[in-house]
Amino acid sequence: MHKKETVAVIGSGAVGSYYGGRLAEAGHDVRFLLRRDYHAVSHSGFNITSSDGDFALPRPSIFRTSEEIGKVDWIICALKATALYDGHRLLQPCVGKHTRILVLMNGLGLEDHFAGWFGRENIFGGMAFVCINRGRPGNIHHLGYGRVTIGHYLDQPDELEEALALWDGSKTDVVTAPSLLQARWEKLCWNIPFSGLCVAGGGITTDRILADHDLSLSAMALMQEVITAGNADLKAHNEKGRIKGYAMIDRMFKQTATMGDYRPSAMIDFVEGRAMEVEAIWGEPMKRAHALKVDTPKLNLLTAILRSLNRGR
Amino acid sequence: MHKKETVAVIGSGAVGSYYGGRLAEAGHDVRFLLRRDYHAVSHSGFNITSSDGDFALPRPSIFRTSEEIGKVDWIICALKATALYDGHRLLQPCVGKHTRILVLMNGLGLEDHFAGWFGRENIFGGMAFVCINRGRPGNIHHLGYGRVTIGHYLDQPDELEEALALWDGSKTDVVTAPSLLQARWEKLCWNIPFSGLCVAGGGITTDRILADHDLSLSAMALMQEVITAGNADLKAHNEKGRIKGYAMIDRMFKQTATMGDYRPSAMIDFVEGRAMEVEAIWGEPMKRAHALKVDTPKLNLLTAILRSLNRGR
Repeated sequence: MHKKETVAVIGSGAVGSYYGGRLAEAGHDVRFLLRRDYHAVSHSGFNITSSDGDFALPRPSIFRTSEEIGKVDWIICALKATALYDGHRLLQPCVGKHTRILVLMNGLGLEDHFAGWFGRENIFGGMAFVCINRGRPGNIHHLGYGRVTIGHYLDQPDELEEALALWDGSKTDVVTAPSLLQARWEKLCWNIPFSGLCVAGGGITTDRILADHDLSLSAMALMQEVITAGNADLKAHNEKGRIKGYAMIDRMFKQTATMGDYRPSAMIDFVEGRAMEVEAIWGEPMKRAHALKVDTPKLNLLTAILRSLNRGR
Repeated sequence: MHKKETVAVIGSGAVGSYYGGRLAEAGHDVRFLLRRDYHAVSHSGFNITSSDGDFALPRPSIFRTSEEIGKVDWIICALKATALYDGHRLLQPCVGKHTRILVLMNGLGLEDHFAGWFGRENIFGGMAFVCINRGRPGNIHHLGYGRVTIGHYLDQPDELEEALALWDGSKTDVVTAPSLLQARWEKLCWNIPFSGLCVAGGGITTDRILADHDLSLSAMALMQEVITAGNADLKAHNEKGRIKGYAMIDRMFKQTATMGDYRPSAMIDFVEGRAMEVEAIWGEPMKRAHALKVDTPKLNLLTAILRSLNRGR
């Protein structure tokens, strides 16, 4: 670790607690905003089983309000996308002039909101590829993977260096993406078909999609729509890069084959009766495709189904 | 009633019991094949509440095997399509040289099987547009609608007159279709989108589809695919008629608007944990579309989802 930084973790679910915990383990001053779990964690701390090594934070810095946390060097915002519009209120008290914000959330276009609230220069997007669950309050089970891909809202290389420096010395595999927008779309190439079909298919694991002729063809066709929409969006944003269609499909299917009976977070939300992040993962990409006149018949149908399943949650 | 006929009802669920009951009420010698409900019905008969007038059959002719029923003038086969392949065995003992068979089931291509087993000349297809549920064994609740559209496998007008004559004097609204294949596809224009989205949307009623912008657009786009596939299939079968696209969509949506919070049978199967008729209603039309090189991206996705939801049932 180069420098001890103050870090606020807003949204201390499994992802926020795990990655915040890794930064605390590495020596940073990490302050967790807790609501529901405050009492339990104040009593027993965080206890994390991890495929990269178990660890515990017996006495983490925990707070009930952002005001008590105060201004920090970094904010890791790991709210669920369904709580996006709480972001402004929850982050505001921690934002100083130089505070950097890592939006470690699922979905497309989230950073636009944070950039509007807090300025574009200090906004980063993070994509965690990780298999992680919550146990009892304060107990996190990290089951595998863990890489975080970080992009900067303005794609500034020196800012990406700053982001890397934060994680230096932590037991976390962090890589940077030269284009945040492209990285977000590439993540959606997996999430839209696989998470979507795991839900719409009745709460199934990813191996069931691969084992099913129709579902895997549907996943592939959905991925093609996402790639087409994503490349149109990259073009509209004057990005130089493009998603390479065939290579992406091949990579995503091969990667999924290594994942076994993986349960995407949307599928876990679905089977446990919680709200799914439908707008961030499916709704916003569909909206952009429409605006760009890209025809996405399968994405439209899947999104309509997921919105229906999400109603009343 | 012109002539008293012997009628075997094979598949005495709600639809079979209701329409068989109407024929018995009109004076025909109707013989019901019962398995699970035999004991209850032998004790209490059939009791039918109906929007067209309640009625009861206190002592219906019921049988445990088709052999006991013996050869009849007419068979009404109202098996669930998932039990299609039981049809040969269950009908065979009732089929004489002149026995006519009305396949009163949901889905496409069912009559092809019966025609292969028992000859083409005597096969009819029936489409019931009816809202009907089972209560306790022997108790049927007919909640609304009830029209039966009947086509003949070879589209012979004189055979259609024979079919009409059977229902003459019964409290049943029966009409004939000059083309059985076209009538089947027209029924699918409703069933594929509306029943499918009621299931995939999480077990919702049809009014919820109409009230939801995305779902109703998806229903319309699915219907367009069905119309295109259906017309290609009609052409391939040298049928003269075609489904009129705009008029059909307009009629189906207007009709659905009159149906309130209708629960399609597939949706009832879904929420009650029973096997849905996925292959007959979605799988076979999709298969034909593929064979005819008609692109049906939404139907493919919906079918993959429904097959997944149906697994293990």
